[in-house]
Amino acid sequence: MLKLYIGNKNYSSWSMRPWVLLKQAGIPFEEVMVKFDSFGADSEFKRVIGEVNPGGRVPVLADDGLAVWDTLAIAEYLAEKFPDKALWPKDRKARARARSVCAEMHSGFAALRNHCPMNIEASLAQAGAIVWRDQPAVRADVQRIVAMWTELLEQHKGPMLFGEFGIADAYFAPVCMRIRNYSLPVPGHVTDYIRRVCALPGVKAWMDDALAERDFVAMDEPYRTTR
Amino acid sequence: MLKLYIGNKNYSSWSMRPWVLLKQAGIPFEEVMVKFDSFGADSEFKRVIGEVNPGGRVPVLADDGLAVWDTLAIAEYLAEKFPDKALWPKDRKARARARSVCAEMHSGFAALRNHCPMNIEASLAQAGAIVWRDQPAVRADVQRIVAMWTELLEQHKGPMLFGEFGIADAYFAPVCMRIRNYSLPVPGHVTDYIRRVCALPGVKAWMDDALAERDFVAMDEPYRTTR
Ligand SMILES: N[C@@H](CCC(=O)N[C@@H](CS)C(=O)NCC(=O)O)C(=O)O
Ligand SMILES: N[C@@H](CCC(=O)N[C@@H](CS)C(=O)NCC(=O)O)C(=O)O
Repeated sequence: MLKLYIGNKNYSSWSMRPWVLLKQAGIPFEEVMVKFDSFGADSEFKRVIGEVNPGGRVPVLADDGLAVWDTLAIAEYLAEKFPDKALWPKDRKARARARSVCAEMHSGFAALRNHCPMNIEASLAQAGAIVWRDQPAVRADVQRIVAMWTELLEQHKGPMLFGEFGIADAYFAPVCMRIRNYSLPVPGHVTDYIRRVCALPGVKAWMDDALAERDFVAMDEPYRTTR
Repeated sequence: MLKLYIGNKNYSSWSMRPWVLLKQAGIPFEEVMVKFDSFGADSEFKRVIGEVNPGGRVPVLADDGLAVWDTLAIAEYLAEKFPDKALWPKDRKARARARSVCAEMHSGFAALRNHCPMNIEASLAQAGAIVWRDQPAVRADVQRIVAMWTELLEQHKGPMLFGEFGIADAYFAPVCMRIRNYSLPVPGHVTDYIRRVCALPGVKAWMDDALAERDFVAMDEPYRTTR
Protein backbone atom coordinates (compact mmCIF):
# COMPACT_ATOMS: atom_id res chain seq x y z
CA MET A 1 0.00 0.00 0.00
CA LEU A 2 1.26 3.47 -0.83
CA LYS A 3 2.17 5.57 2.21
CA LEU A 4 2.06 9.35 2.11
CA TYR A 5 3.92 11.36 4.76
CA ILE A 6 2.37 14.76 5.27
CA GLY A 7 2.44 17.72 7.66
CA ASN A 8 -0.48 19.40 9.43
CA LYS A 9 -3.44 19.63 7.09
CA ASN A 10 -4.28 23.16 8.16
CA TYR A 11 -0.87 24.49 7.21
CA SER A 12 1.05 22.17 4.89
CA SER A 13 0.35 23.44 1.40
CA TRP A 14 2.89 21.13 -0.21
CA SER A 15 1.40 18.08 1.51
CA MET A 16 -2.07 18.99 0.31
CA ARG A 17 -1.20 18.50 -3.36
CA PRO A 18 -0.39 14.77 -3.52
CA TRP A 19 -2.97 13.92 -0.84
CA VAL A 20 -5.75 15.60 -2.82
CA LEU A 21 -4.45 14.02 -6.02
CA LEU A 22 -4.52 10.51 -4.55
CA LYS A 23 -7.88 10.99 -2.84
CA GLN A 24 -9.64 12.59 -5.77
CA ALA A 25 -8.24 10.01 -8.21
CA GLY A 26 -9.45 7.20 -5.95
CA ILE A 27 -5.99 5.69 -5.40
CA PRO A 28 -5.83 3.93 -2.02
CA PHE A 29 -3.07 5.07 0.33
CA GLU A 30 -2.17 5.21 3.97
CA GLU A 31 -1.57 8.63 5.48
CA VAL A 32 1.26 9.24 7.95
CA MET A 33 0.99 12.62 9.58
CA VAL A 34 4.14 14.13 11.03
CA LYS A 35 3.04 17.24 12.82
CA PHE A 36 5.14 20.39 12.68
CA ASP A 37 6.92 21.18 15.93
CA SER A 38 9.69 23.25 14.41
CA PHE A 39 11.96 22.83 11.42
CA GLY A 40 15.07 23.04 13.62
CA ALA A 41 17.74 20.38 13.13
CA ASP A 42 16.81 18.84 16.50
CA SER A 43 13.03 18.90 15.98
CA GLU A 44 10.90 15.78 16.20
CA PHE A 45 9.62 16.61 12.69
CA LYS A 46 13.13 16.51 11.21
CA ARG A 47 14.00 13.35 13.11
CA VAL A 48 11.04 11.41 11.75
CA ILE A 49 11.08 12.81 8.21
CA GLY A 50 14.86 12.64 7.94
CA GLU A 51 14.55 8.88 8.10
CA VAL A 52 12.56 8.74 4.86
CA ASN A 53 13.69 11.91 3.05
CA PRO A 54 17.30 13.09 3.41
CA GLY A 55 16.02 16.54 2.31
CA GLY A 56 13.95 16.62 5.51
CA ARG A 57 10.66 17.80 4.04
CA VAL A 58 7.11 16.62 3.54
CA PRO A 59 5.45 15.31 1.45
CA VAL A 60 7.12 11.95 0.88
CA LEU A 61 5.52 9.00 -0.89
CA ALA A 62 6.76 5.58 0.15
CA ASP A 63 6.03 2.72 -2.23
CA ASP A 64 7.31 -0.63 -1.05
CA GLY A 65 10.59 0.71 0.32
CA LEU A 66 11.09 3.34 -2.38
CA ALA A 67 10.86 6.93 -1.11
CA VAL A 68 9.79 9.56 -3.59
CA TRP A 69 9.94 13.11 -2.30
CA ASP A 70 8.91 16.47 -3.60
CA THR A 71 5.38 17.03 -4.87
CA LEU A 72 6.27 17.25 -8.53
CA ALA A 73 8.28 14.02 -8.48
CA ILE A 74 5.43 12.35 -6.59
CA ALA A 75 2.95 13.57 -9.19
CA GLU A 76 5.06 12.19 -12.05
CA TYR A 77 5.52 8.91 -10.20
CA LEU A 78 1.78 8.50 -9.73
CA ALA A 79 1.07 9.51 -13.34
CA GLU A 80 3.44 6.76 -14.49
CA LYS A 81 2.14 4.14 -12.05
CA PHE A 82 -1.54 4.75 -12.76
CA PRO A 83 -1.76 5.58 -16.48
CA ASP A 84 -5.49 4.77 -16.60
CA LYS A 85 -6.19 7.61 -14.15
CA ALA A 86 -5.04 10.22 -16.71
CA LEU A 87 -3.52 12.40 -13.99
CA TRP A 88 -1.85 14.48 -16.70
CA PRO A 89 -3.97 15.46 -19.73
CA LYS A 90 -3.96 12.78 -22.46
CA ASP A 91 -3.34 15.32 -25.21
CA ARG A 92 0.37 15.90 -25.78
CA LYS A 93 0.14 19.68 -26.01
CA ALA A 94 -2.20 20.04 -23.06
CA ARG A 95 0.13 17.79 -21.08
CA ALA A 96 3.11 20.02 -21.87
CA ARG A 97 1.10 23.07 -20.82
CA ALA A 98 -0.03 21.40 -17.60
CA ARG A 99 3.58 20.60 -16.76
CA SER A 100 4.60 24.19 -17.56
CA VAL A 101 2.09 25.72 -15.16
CA CYS A 102 2.82 23.19 -12.40
CA ALA A 103 6.58 23.74 -12.70
CA GLU A 104 5.97 27.49 -12.73
CA MET A 105 4.03 27.09 -9.48
CA HIS A 106 6.70 24.81 -8.07
CA SER A 107 9.48 27.39 -8.14
CA GLY A 108 7.49 30.59 -8.29
CA PHE A 109 4.91 32.76 -6.55
CA ALA A 110 7.23 33.35 -3.62
CA ALA A 111 5.48 36.58 -2.62
CA LEU A 112 2.06 34.95 -2.38
CA ARG A 113 3.54 31.99 -0.53
CA ASN A 114 5.44 34.11 1.97
CA HIS A 115 2.82 36.75 2.68
CA CYS A 116 -0.22 34.47 2.64
CA PRO A 117 0.80 31.15 4.18
CA MET A 118 -1.92 28.55 3.93
CA ASN A 119 -4.19 28.47 6.96
CA ILE A 120 -7.43 26.74 6.07
CA GLU A 121 -9.28 27.33 9.33
CA ALA A 122 -8.52 31.05 9.68
CA SER A 123 -10.46 34.07 8.42
CA LEU A 124 -7.70 36.41 7.40
CA ALA A 125 -9.54 38.97 5.31
CA GLN A 126 -8.04 41.90 7.24
CA ALA A 127 -4.48 40.62 6.92
CA GLY A 128 -5.24 39.92 3.26
CA ALA A 129 -6.41 43.48 2.65
CA ILE A 130 -3.21 44.88 4.13
CA VAL A 131 -1.04 42.47 2.16
CA TRP A 132 -2.96 43.42 -0.99
CA ARG A 133 -2.45 47.13 -0.33
CA ASP A 134 1.24 46.94 0.59
CA GLN A 135 2.69 44.11 -1.48
CA PRO A 136 2.82 44.73 -5.23
CA ALA A 137 4.60 41.38 -5.69
CA VAL A 138 1.58 39.58 -4.22
CA ARG A 139 -0.70 41.48 -6.59
CA ALA A 140 1.57 40.50 -9.49
CA ASP A 141 1.48 36.84 -8.42
CA VAL A 142 -2.31 36.83 -8.23
CA GLN A 143 -2.58 38.67 -11.54
CA ARG A 144 -0.47 35.98 -13.21
CA ILE A 145 -2.57 33.22 -11.65
CA VAL A 146 -5.81 34.87 -12.75
CA ALA A 147 -4.48 35.22 -16.32
CA MET A 148 -3.32 31.61 -16.38
CA TRP A 149 -6.54 30.13 -15.00
CA THR A 150 -8.70 32.33 -17.20
CA GLU A 151 -6.93 31.17 -20.33
CA LEU A 152 -7.01 27.50 -19.35
CA LEU A 153 -10.66 27.52 -18.25
CA GLU A 154 -11.68 29.18 -21.51
CA GLN A 155 -9.59 26.91 -23.66
CA HIS A 156 -10.63 23.64 -22.05
CA LYS A 157 -14.15 24.81 -21.19
CA GLY A 158 -13.83 23.81 -17.49
CA PRO A 159 -14.92 22.72 -15.03
CA MET A 160 -11.26 22.12 -14.09
CA LEU A 161 -8.14 23.76 -15.56
CA PHE A 162 -7.63 21.10 -18.23
CA GLY A 163 -11.23 19.92 -18.46
CA GLU A 164 -11.34 17.03 -16.03
CA PHE A 165 -9.60 17.07 -12.63
CA GLY A 166 -5.87 16.38 -12.76
CA ILE A 167 -2.47 17.20 -11.33
CA ALA A 168 -2.73 20.90 -12.22
CA ASP A 169 -5.88 21.35 -10.11
CA ALA A 170 -4.27 19.52 -7.19
CA TYR A 171 -1.23 21.73 -7.66
CA PHE A 172 -3.23 24.92 -7.42
CA ALA A 173 -5.60 23.77 -4.67
CA PRO A 174 -3.45 25.44 -1.96
CA VAL A 175 -3.55 28.66 -3.99
CA CYS A 176 -7.36 28.42 -3.95
CA MET A 177 -7.16 28.16 -0.16
CA ARG A 178 -4.96 31.25 0.09
CA ILE A 179 -7.16 33.38 -2.15
CA ARG A 180 -10.17 32.25 -0.16
CA ASN A 181 -8.81 32.62 3.37
CA TYR A 182 -7.19 36.00 2.75
CA SER A 183 -10.17 37.17 0.65
CA LEU A 184 -7.89 38.33 -2.14
CA PRO A 185 -9.87 40.10 -4.88
CA VAL A 186 -10.28 37.99 -8.03
CA PRO A 187 -12.81 38.05 -10.87
CA GLY A 188 -16.08 36.13 -10.53
CA HIS A 189 -15.15 33.29 -12.88
CA VAL A 190 -12.04 32.66 -10.73
CA THR A 191 -14.14 32.60 -7.55
CA ASP A 192 -16.37 30.09 -9.33
CA TYR A 193 -13.40 27.88 -10.15
CA ILE A 194 -12.23 28.06 -6.53
CA ARG A 195 -15.72 27.07 -5.41
CA ARG A 196 -15.67 24.08 -7.75
CA VAL A 197 -12.25 23.03 -6.43
CA CYS A 198 -13.47 23.28 -2.81
CA ALA A 199 -16.45 21.09 -3.73
CA LEU A 200 -14.32 18.24 -5.09
CA PRO A 201 -14.68 15.36 -2.60
CA GLY A 202 -10.88 14.98 -2.36
CA VAL A 203 -10.42 18.66 -1.53
CA LYS A 204 -13.40 18.77 0.80
CA ALA A 205 -12.04 15.79 2.74
CA TRP A 206 -8.71 17.57 3.27
CA MET A 207 -10.43 20.80 4.33
CA ASP A 208 -12.70 18.96 6.79
CA ASP A 209 -9.67 17.27 8.35
CA ALA A 210 -7.85 20.61 8.52
CA LEU A 211 -10.78 22.22 10.33
CA ALA A 212 -10.88 19.35 12.82
CA GLU A 213 -7.18 19.64 13.62
CA ARG A 214 -7.27 22.56 16.05
CA ASP A 215 -3.50 22.96 16.38
CA PHE A 216 -1.79 26.32 16.58
CA VAL A 217 1.69 26.30 15.05
CA ALA A 218 3.19 29.70 15.78
CA MET A 219 5.77 29.66 12.96
CA ASP A 220 2.92 29.36 10.46
CA GLU A 221 0.86 32.14 12.06
CA PRO A 222 2.23 35.57 11.16
CA TYR A 223 -1.21 37.13 11.68
CA ARG A 224 -2.60 35.50 14.84
CA THR A 225 -1.38 34.90 18.36
CA THR A 226 -4.04 32.31 19.13
CA ARG A 227 -6.87 30.41 17.43
CA MET B 1 13.27 22.58 -35.62
CA LEU B 2 13.13 23.05 -31.86
CA LYS B 3 13.82 26.61 -30.72
CA LEU B 4 15.19 27.37 -27.26
CA TYR B 5 14.88 30.88 -25.84
CA ILE B 6 17.60 31.60 -23.31
CA GLY B 7 19.17 34.48 -21.39
CA ASN B 8 22.85 35.45 -21.18
CA LYS B 9 25.00 32.36 -20.96
CA ASN B 10 27.25 33.86 -18.32
CA TYR B 11 24.38 34.49 -15.93
CA SER B 12 21.27 32.51 -16.78
CA SER B 13 21.44 29.40 -14.66
CA TRP B 14 17.93 28.27 -15.59
CA SER B 15 18.66 28.60 -19.31
CA MET B 16 21.80 26.53 -18.97
CA ARG B 17 19.91 23.38 -17.98
CA PRO B 18 17.83 22.63 -21.11
CA TRP B 19 20.56 23.99 -23.43
CA VAL B 20 23.13 21.61 -21.97
CA LEU B 21 20.61 18.79 -22.02
CA LEU B 22 19.83 19.29 -25.73
CA LYS B 23 23.46 19.79 -26.70
CA GLN B 24 24.86 16.89 -24.73
CA ALA B 25 22.07 14.57 -25.91
CA GLY B 26 22.76 15.55 -29.52
CA ILE B 27 19.27 16.90 -30.19
CA PRO B 28 19.37 19.62 -32.87
CA PHE B 29 17.87 22.97 -31.89
CA GLU B 30 18.05 26.63 -32.72
CA GLU B 31 19.09 29.00 -29.95
CA VAL B 32 17.37 32.36 -29.49
CA MET B 33 19.22 34.54 -27.03
CA VAL B 34 17.25 37.29 -25.31
CA LYS B 35 19.79 39.26 -23.35
CA PHE B 36 18.95 40.58 -19.90
CA ASP B 37 18.46 44.35 -19.79
CA SER B 38 16.29 44.40 -16.71
CA PHE B 39 13.32 42.36 -15.53
CA GLY B 40 11.15 45.49 -15.25
CA ALA B 41 7.71 45.36 -16.84
CA ASP B 42 8.86 47.75 -19.58
CA SER B 43 12.17 45.98 -20.32
CA GLU B 44 13.07 44.72 -23.77
CA PHE B 45 13.60 41.28 -22.19
CA LYS B 46 10.03 41.12 -20.90
CA ARG B 47 8.62 42.45 -24.17
CA VAL B 48 10.29 39.73 -26.26
CA ILE B 49 9.82 36.83 -23.81
CA GLY B 50 6.28 37.87 -22.91
CA GLU B 51 5.29 37.02 -26.47
CA VAL B 52 6.22 33.35 -26.03
CA ASN B 53 5.83 32.82 -22.28
CA PRO B 54 3.09 34.67 -20.38
CA GLY B 55 5.13 34.04 -17.22
CA GLY B 56 7.84 36.26 -18.73
CA ARG B 57 10.84 34.03 -18.02
CA VAL B 58 13.53 32.08 -19.83
CA PRO B 59 14.03 29.30 -20.76
CA VAL B 60 11.21 28.59 -23.21
CA LEU B 61 11.19 25.75 -25.72
CA ALA B 62 9.15 26.34 -28.86
CA ASP B 63 8.20 23.27 -30.87
CA ASP B 64 6.19 24.01 -33.97
CA GLY B 65 4.04 26.69 -32.35
CA LEU B 66 3.82 25.01 -28.95
CA ALA B 67 5.57 26.93 -26.17
CA VAL B 68 6.84 24.89 -23.22
CA TRP B 69 8.26 26.94 -20.40
CA ASP B 70 10.02 26.18 -17.17
CA THR B 71 13.07 23.94 -17.15
CA LEU B 72 11.41 20.97 -15.51
CA ALA B 73 8.49 20.96 -17.95
CA ILE B 74 10.97 21.30 -20.84
CA ALA B 75 12.96 18.36 -19.50
CA GLU B 76 9.84 16.19 -19.26
CA TYR B 77 8.76 17.26 -22.75
CA LEU B 78 12.13 16.29 -24.23
CA ALA B 79 12.19 13.00 -22.31
CA GLU B 80 8.81 12.15 -23.82
CA LYS B 81 9.70 13.30 -27.33
CA PHE B 82 13.05 11.52 -27.49
CA PRO B 83 12.57 8.27 -25.57
CA ASP B 84 15.62 6.68 -27.21
CA LYS B 85 17.87 9.32 -25.62
CA ALA B 86 17.09 8.01 -22.11
CA LEU B 87 17.17 11.49 -20.63
CA TRP B 88 15.70 10.07 -17.42
CA PRO B 89 17.17 6.80 -16.08
CA LYS B 90 15.52 3.74 -17.62
CA ASP B 91 15.15 2.02 -14.26
CA ARG B 92 11.86 2.93 -12.59
CA LYS B 93 13.31 3.50 -9.13
CA ALA B 94 16.31 5.46 -10.37
CA ARG B 95 13.92 7.56 -12.48
CA ALA B 96 11.81 8.37 -9.43
CA ARG B 97 14.94 9.33 -7.50
CA ALA B 98 16.21 11.50 -10.38
CA ARG B 99 12.88 13.32 -10.44
CA SER B 100 13.01 13.77 -6.66
CA VAL B 101 16.42 15.44 -6.70
CA CYS B 102 15.59 17.62 -9.72
CA ALA B 103 12.32 18.78 -8.18
CA GLU B 104 14.15 19.40 -4.89
CA MET B 105 16.59 21.60 -6.81
CA HIS B 106 13.75 23.28 -8.67
CA SER B 107 12.12 24.76 -5.60
CA GLY B 108 14.99 24.70 -3.15
CA PHE B 109 18.52 25.87 -2.41
CA ALA B 110 17.39 29.48 -2.23
CA ALA B 111 20.35 30.54 -0.08
CA LEU B 112 22.93 29.19 -2.51
CA ARG B 113 21.04 30.70 -5.44
CA ASN B 114 20.71 34.11 -3.82
CA HIS B 115 24.16 34.46 -2.34
CA CYS B 116 26.09 32.85 -5.18
CA PRO B 117 24.41 33.85 -8.45
CA MET B 118 25.91 32.06 -11.44
CA ASN B 119 28.72 34.03 -13.08
CA ILE B 120 30.81 31.70 -15.19
CA GLU B 121 33.51 34.14 -16.19
CA ALA B 122 34.21 35.60 -12.75
CA SER B 123 36.69 34.47 -10.08
CA LEU B 124 34.76 35.04 -6.91
CA ALA B 125 36.77 33.09 -4.36
CA GLN B 126 36.93 36.05 -1.95
CA ALA B 127 33.20 36.69 -2.09
CA GLY B 128 32.70 32.95 -1.73
CA ALA B 129 34.83 32.79 1.41
CA ILE B 130 32.80 35.58 3.04
CA VAL B 131 29.52 33.97 2.05
CA TRP B 132 30.77 30.67 3.44
CA ARG B 133 31.77 32.29 6.72
CA ASP B 134 28.60 34.36 7.20
CA GLN B 135 25.78 32.34 5.68
CA PRO B 136 24.92 29.12 7.51
CA ALA B 137 22.04 28.54 5.07
CA VAL B 138 24.51 28.41 2.18
CA ARG B 139 26.62 25.92 4.09
CA ALA B 140 23.49 23.83 4.74
CA ASP B 141 22.56 23.92 1.04
CA VAL B 142 26.02 22.77 -0.02
CA GLN B 143 26.06 20.11 2.68
CA ARG B 144 22.79 18.70 1.33
CA ILE B 145 24.13 18.75 -2.24
CA VAL B 146 27.34 17.01 -1.21
CA ALA B 147 25.37 14.31 0.62
CA MET B 148 23.03 13.83 -2.35
CA TRP B 149 25.79 13.63 -4.95
CA THR B 150 27.94 11.38 -2.79
CA GLU B 151 25.12 8.89 -2.37
CA LEU B 152 24.18 8.90 -6.06
CA LEU B 153 27.77 8.63 -7.33
CA GLU B 154 28.43 5.70 -5.01
CA GLN B 155 25.21 3.94 -5.83
CA HIS B 156 25.41 4.31 -9.61
CA LYS B 157 29.23 4.14 -9.73
CA GLY B 158 29.52 7.37 -11.77
CA PRO B 159 30.76 8.98 -13.84
CA MET B 160 27.49 10.97 -13.74
CA LEU B 161 24.87 11.09 -10.98
CA PHE B 162 22.81 8.22 -12.39
CA GLY B 163 25.59 6.49 -14.32
CA GLU B 164 25.29 8.00 -17.77
CA PHE B 165 24.61 11.70 -18.40
CA GLY B 166 20.98 12.73 -18.04
CA ILE B 167 18.56 15.39 -16.88
CA ALA B 168 19.85 15.34 -13.29
CA ASP B 169 23.38 16.27 -14.38
CA ALA B 170 22.05 19.06 -16.59
CA TYR B 171 19.94 20.20 -13.65
CA PHE B 172 22.93 20.44 -11.33
CA ALA B 173 25.38 21.87 -13.89
CA PRO B 174 24.71 25.47 -12.72
CA VAL B 175 25.40 24.33 -9.14
CA CYS B 176 28.75 22.99 -10.35
CA MET B 177 29.45 26.46 -11.79
CA ARG B 178 28.61 28.14 -8.49
CA ILE B 179 30.75 25.84 -6.38
CA ARG B 180 33.61 26.35 -8.84
CA ASN B 181 33.39 30.12 -9.30
CA TYR B 182 32.96 30.88 -5.62
CA SER B 183 35.51 28.20 -4.64
CA LEU B 184 33.16 26.73 -2.07
CA PRO B 185 34.84 23.97 -0.08
CA VAL B 186 33.67 20.47 -1.08
CA PRO B 187 35.25 17.02 -0.73
CA GLY B 188 37.62 15.76 -3.43
CA HIS B 189 35.19 13.30 -5.01
CA VAL B 190 32.73 16.17 -5.48
CA THR B 191 35.41 18.33 -7.11
CA ASP B 192 36.09 15.36 -9.38
CA TYR B 193 32.42 15.13 -10.37
CA ILE B 194 32.37 18.88 -11.08
CA ARG B 195 35.45 18.45 -13.26
CA ARG B 196 33.78 15.65 -15.20
CA VAL B 197 30.66 17.80 -15.70
CA CYS B 198 32.76 20.71 -16.97
CA ALA B 199 34.47 18.36 -19.43
CA LEU B 200 31.20 17.20 -21.03
CA PRO B 201 31.16 18.68 -24.55
CA GLY B 202 27.66 20.13 -24.00
CA VAL B 203 28.75 21.89 -20.81
CA LYS B 204 32.07 23.00 -22.23
CA ALA B 205 30.30 24.54 -25.24
CA TRP B 206 28.06 26.58 -22.93
CA MET B 207 31.00 27.69 -20.80
CA ASP B 208 33.04 28.73 -23.84
CA ASP B 209 30.12 30.81 -25.13
CA ALA B 210 29.68 32.36 -21.68
CA LEU B 211 33.35 33.36 -21.57
CA ALA B 212 33.08 34.93 -25.02
CA GLU B 213 30.04 37.02 -24.08
CA ARG B 214 31.77 39.86 -22.22
CA ASP B 215 28.59 41.57 -21.02
CA PHE B 216 28.26 43.12 -17.58
CA VAL B 217 24.72 42.92 -16.19
CA ALA B 218 24.74 44.89 -12.95
CA MET B 219 21.68 43.22 -11.41
CA ASP B 220 23.51 39.88 -11.59
CA GLU B 221 26.74 41.26 -10.12
CA PRO B 222 26.46 41.70 -6.35
CA TYR B 223 30.23 41.33 -5.99
CA ARG B 224 31.74 43.36 -8.86
CA THR B 225 31.34 46.85 -10.25
CA THR B 226 33.03 46.05 -13.55
CA ARG B 227 34.48 43.06 -15.43
N1 LIG C 1 9.53 21.42 -3.05
C1 LIG C 1 9.07 20.66 -1.92
C2 LIG C 1 8.72 21.57 -0.79
C3 LIG C 1 8.30 20.84 0.44
C4 LIG C 1 8.29 21.72 1.67
O1 LIG C 1 8.93 22.78 1.72
N2 LIG C 1 7.53 21.29 2.70
C5 LIG C 1 7.50 21.97 3.97
C6 LIG C 1 6.17 21.80 4.66
S1 LIG C 1 4.81 22.44 3.72
C7 LIG C 1 8.55 21.38 4.85
O2 LIG C 1 8.63 20.16 5.02
N3 LIG C 1 9.41 22.22 5.41
C8 LIG C 1 10.48 21.82 6.28
C9 LIG C 1 11.65 22.74 6.14
O3 LIG C 1 11.57 23.69 5.35
O4 LIG C 1 12.64 22.51 6.84
C10 LIG C 1 7.90 19.80 -2.37
O5 LIG C 1 7.31 20.13 -3.40
O6 LIG C 1 7.59 18.78 -1.77
N1 LIG D 1 11.32 28.05 -12.71
C1 LIG D 1 11.75 28.73 -13.89
C2 LIG D 1 12.65 29.86 -13.52
C3 LIG D 1 13.12 30.66 -14.69
C4 LIG D 1 13.77 31.97 -14.29
O1 LIG D 1 13.54 32.49 -13.19
N2 LIG D 1 14.55 32.55 -15.22
C5 LIG D 1 15.14 33.86 -15.02
C6 LIG D 1 16.45 33.99 -15.75
S1 LIG D 1 17.67 32.83 -15.20
C7 LIG D 1 14.20 34.90 -15.57
O2 LIG D 1 13.77 34.78 -16.71
N3 LIG D 1 13.86 35.89 -14.76
C8 LIG D 1 12.98 36.94 -15.15
C9 LIG D 1 12.22 37.45 -13.96
O3 LIG D 1 12.42 36.92 -12.87
O4 LIG D 1 11.42 38.36 -14.15
C10 LIG D 1 12.40 27.73 -14.80
O5 LIG D 1 12.78 26.66 -14.32
O6 LIG D 1 12.47 27.93 -16.01
